[in-house]
Amino acid sequence: MSDNSHPFVEVYGHGGDVETAAQRFGGDAAAYLDYSANINPLGPPQEVMHALQDAMKAIIRYPDPGHRGFKRRLSDKLGIGEEQLLAGNGAAECMALLLLGLKPQTVGVVEPCFSEYRQLAEQFGCKVRTVYGREDRDWRADKAQIAELLSATDLVFLGQPNNPNGVQYELADIRELAGAAERCGAWLVLDEAFIDFIPARQRQTLLPELANYPRTVIIRSMTKFYAIPGLRLGYACAHPEVIRAMAGKQVTWSVNGLALLAGEACLASGRDFEQQTLALIDTERSRLTDGLRALRFRVSPGEANYVLAELPEPWNAERFQREMGRCGILVRSCAMYPGLRAGHIRLAVKDAAANQRLLHAIAEVLAKQPGTWT
Amino acid sequence: MSDNSHPFVEVYGHGGDVETAAQRFGGDAAAYLDYSANINPLGPPQEVMHALQDAMKAIIRYPDPGHRGFKRRLSDKLGIGEEQLLAGNGAAECMALLLLGLKPQTVGVVEPCFSEYRQLAEQFGCKVRTVYGREDRDWRADKAQIAELLSATDLVFLGQPNNPNGVQYELADIRELAGAAERCGAWLVLDEAFIDFIPARQRQTLLPELANYPRTVIIRSMTKFYAIPGLRLGYACAHPEVIRAMAGKQVTWSVNGLALLAGEACLASGRDFEQQTLALIDTERSRLTDGLRALRFRVSPGEANYVLAELPEPWNAERFQREMGRCGILVRSCAMYPGLRAGHIRLAVKDAAANQRLLHAIAEVLAKQPGTWT
Repeated sequence: MSDNSHPFVEVYGHGGDVETAAQRFGGDAAAYLDYSANINPLGPPQEVMHALQDAMKAIIRYPDPGHRGFKRRLSDKLGIGEEQLLAGNGAAECMALLLLGLKPQTVGVVEPCFSEYRQLAEQFGCKVRTVYGREDRDWRADKAQIAELLSATDLVFLGQPNNPNGVQYELADIRELAGAAERCGAWLVLDEAFIDFIPARQRQTLLPELANYPRTVIIRSMTKFYAIPGLRLGYACAHPEVIRAMAGKQVTWSVNGLALLAGEACLASGRDFEQQTLALIDTERSRLTDGLRALRFRVSPGEANYVLAELPEPWNAERFQREMGRCGILVRSCAMYPGLRAGHIRLAVKDAAANQRLLHAIAEVLAKQPGTWT
Repeated sequence: MSDNSHPFVEVYGHGGDVETAAQRFGGDAAAYLDYSANINPLGPPQEVMHALQDAMKAIIRYPDPGHRGFKRRLSDKLGIGEEQLLAGNGAAECMALLLLGLKPQTVGVVEPCFSEYRQLAEQFGCKVRTVYGREDRDWRADKAQIAELLSATDLVFLGQPNNPNGVQYELADIRELAGAAERCGAWLVLDEAFIDFIPARQRQTLLPELANYPRTVIIRSMTKFYAIPGLRLGYACAHPEVIRAMAGKQVTWSVNGLALLAGEACLASGRDFEQQTLALIDTERSRLTDGLRALRFRVSPGEANYVLAELPEPWNAERFQREMGRCGILVRSCAMYPGLRAGHIRLAVKDAAANQRLLHAIAEVLAKQPGTWT
């Protein structure tokens, strides 16, 4: 898997792999400024760090196999029943459990999208059918294409907002697609891993109406907004029968004890953390977008805590990633996303100081003559 | 799952569930003295607590999806190649990945044994065949029975030492069974989750000869000996092709970042921790065994950090567990293990103070007249 001949740093198919970056580009992995993973630049809420420090003694106990404290708080926060919730070892495990529990034979994906949809489907022996987003719709697919995909497959994954382009589908469209899923007996899986980064009034989520659509599943992540990807915690919201099918395939203690404790602390953290995060992301996404456009990048307009951008000619993502790596900055190449091009990259939205450093480094790298490339 | 009508505290099928104990018996879950889970009473090595305190900042990064640092250290310690190793989100995930990767249709278990063998096999749609250990062999099965099970199934789980009775099979017998597995094309899975608690010279492990038996898999746990069950970390040792089949079913980032860091720190911890643990377990298992026999328990002779015991008549495990729960002590009922009886319990081996408290509480509970039972 960590094959050095692999053309990209994303040898595991994802951003955030500073170990491989350091192997390839030199430098200390821990010292990398990592723009390839989309994590809240504020770090976790203070409450989480306190809870975890208290919890260090708790690692000598098994995790609660019923995830009870976490599910109780989550149920309160979301306003849905505990029987509609499943806690997972990251959102990725929730997706795997859906495939194991619902046993779709054919899975539909809308490219470009999070690569785990396809990878997990293939891991668990499903056939994969693909439709492509349209560049003139910022890589959203047409509603009709997705409806067709639902009737041609057993389960469709849809990112809301989608990764790597950060755009949402309109709630009215999602509602129609959820209705279509009911009619044709397919599962619609809405991946809302990044939706917490969008201000509440702009979130296009079907969650409050989920009870009307027993064939729709919503998957969310606790690790992006709350900045705890090392701990692994995600959850699924669905009809109780779907939750039971997923739980039936989950390995006991799959969610570790610190993740559960941190998750409870995250849900108990104040409004301030949320407000500060949303304000920061809004300001800094604009800074990043404007700065990149000034450097002749084409930037997709998105609402999430990352931006999809295309490098100015003649740069490609692989070379750019290498040059940035030599500055100690890791960016996500998106050249391997089906439907995107060799010049596409994705950048997380971080805080002002980091974003200034990023834009400065990009300007320096782009100023190099192609003739000096190694 | 957390159904209150369930007759046992083990509503999830295992010990260590102090939450359910507190629900059923009252008291604060965190204050329970937990004898139902078999964890090193010394707690984790100091190195681990230090590493984790340093690592708290690392939770804002994704785990290394290649588990590279941990596997490198493990390979050095075990003297086998990294390509023969897979790190898992607990030993339980390693077992699940074996079933998903090797796709056995029929799984053999030797009861009484760790309940996950059967549960995972059923979770993943396998048929289960059972043979039973013999009481006159301390619940070991005959070698011939296990060999027969290998020829009648695709994969056999065998605990070495076995849980809940703590006995090992002789290495010569294991070697013969591994040979039989090769001949009949079945997989032999040796669960060595507790073998680190046995002094090196008494360990009956096939690990040094594993290369000779490509159909034998060894699964070990880091969470018992190193007292980090809340973090989840286990590993499998097997032929590189088996490791690849397992890795092909593993969800990305399944092993969390703190577990990987703690695992490295555990492997780097000194000989002292190991020596102290082994000495403590040896002394205290004797104390516990002698104390229980003095209280008219029948105690199976085992070598691990737990003891299987049968209550004196007319006590049964359910009642005893309830009475002990009211003293704030959680014991593992083994009444639900196929092949055992209503009076069987399992007790972890803890430190002197805890074991004295336990024996004292047991004496008091047993002194109650059956007429006073509620």
